[in-house]
Amino acid sequence: MLLSSDSSEASRPFLAWQRILDWAREHYRYRVFNKDERVPTRAGLLYLVHRGVIRLVGTAQINVSTMTSVSQLSHQVTEEAFLGFVAAGQPFEIVAQSPFTLEAYSHMDQTSVIWLYWQDLDNWPHVRREVLDAFRYQHQRKLLWLSTLGQRRTIDRLLGFITLLIEEFGEPTSEGYRLPFPLTHAQIGSAIGSTRVTITRLMGKLRQQGLIGIQEDHLIYLPIKPDLVTIDAVENPVSVEPG
Amino acid sequence: MLLSSDSSEASRPFLAWQRILDWAREHYRYRVFNKDERVPTRAGLLYLVHRGVIRLVGTAQINVSTMTSVSQLSHQVTEEAFLGFVAAGQPFEIVAQSPFTLEAYSHMDQTSVIWLYWQDLDNWPHVRREVLDAFRYQHQRKLLWLSTLGQRRTIDRLLGFITLLIEEFGEPTSEGYRLPFPLTHAQIGSAIGSTRVTITRLMGKLRQQGLIGIQEDHLIYLPIKPDLVTIDAVENPVSVEPG
Repeated sequence: MLLSSDSSEASRPFLAWQRILDWAREHYRYRVFNKDERVPTRAGLLYLVHRGVIRLVGTAQINVSTMTSVSQLSHQVTEEAFLGFVAAGQPFEIVAQSPFTLEAYSHMDQTSVIWLYWQDLDNWPHVRREVLDAFRYQHQRKLLWLSTLGQRRTIDRLLGFITLLIEEFGEPTSEGYRLPFPLTHAQIGSAIGSTRVTITRLMGKLRQQGLIGIQEDHLIYLPIKPDLVTIDAVENPVSVEPG
Repeated sequence: MLLSSDSSEASRPFLAWQRILDWAREHYRYRVFNKDERVPTRAGLLYLVHRGVIRLVGTAQINVSTMTSVSQLSHQVTEEAFLGFVAAGQPFEIVAQSPFTLEAYSHMDQTSVIWLYWQDLDNWPHVRREVLDAFRYQHQRKLLWLSTLGQRRTIDRLLGFITLLIEEFGEPTSEGYRLPFPLTHAQIGSAIGSTRVTITRLMGKLRQQGLIGIQEDHLIYLPIKPDLVTIDAVENPVSVEPG
């Protein structure tokens, strides 16, 4: 975790982050967002999540119907895909656009974001390196995500998707590893190329088979099975060599 | 393109790359691979494609059948997913592993690869920055890829997938922008969660509608439609700010 809101931490990297935080507040580069509020982004800027969690979303600009103009109605249909979370302490940027639009939304109330130009990091080379390593890590995670989306059966994609999210963001509870952010069935469906209705059905099936569980607050968890969740990967996600 | 095999180029960055190439050959960190040969990789090492093209593949370690042991047979079934190309001049690394295995294969004969430790780049800070920016770019491309895989209809995912690959790797021909690397229908299916048979059927449909074309050598192209392919994005893929 790059930025920490826990001020008891006193390691040297943290000092750099504290300075960035102070600097961002002084220069009005710090903003707090409500749940589901869109974070305005611009290519060339770098964003750091200070508190809460960001949801990345992609919107398809093209599909076969709009391109062949088979239906007038289909022009109004846009498909949004859930592309992942960026948790507190992690950076994100939105550069690529065509033929899909990438956007960032605050996934929870009180999500706060710092933004800066890349050259602003010239003063904090250590942080710059951490940011770039975080992007390397995120890139590797997306390759795993693509691996599960290549699976043919929707239920396999669903279980792979949940497992990957919990491996990356999961926190231990008495019942197992829990994804600490809520996700609707529609959002899950939008990530794995399926529908809300199908996700609801398949989630029931996975629960029945004991492969996932749902807590009272609707949070998803993986029941403790040491051979399934790699503890090491959960506790030390950035296994990339610092170089 | 980071590494160039065109020695007539004499810009300063190129000199750094030429030195890395010389260094890699001297230190036996250079190897040529045949088509479909696996490139042995290790976490913590960085790989640079000098010639040819690398195919990244993910293999699912888990699926619902193996985890519930419904079928003994399913233990032998592994699903491989095509995760993308790494073209000449681009870096790659394989770090993340669980619960999917990531692997790199030579996609064409005479594909050559350099490998080095990250600290080897301490001598070439300019190259280090280019490599990290290339990973930022690849990460953005994967977000777009995930956007199309969230689309519900297979034909939309197929068209989005082809469009993204050609936007990134396409080269102009008289007929349109062409993906210069061959891809089997099975490989395409493995990327978008479908089967070879379905891909063959849907490719026919897309051809019929004039949305894609197939050249004599089986290479896929997008017929020229200025409003579809963003020329700028094809010719200058790294639109990320150099910082």
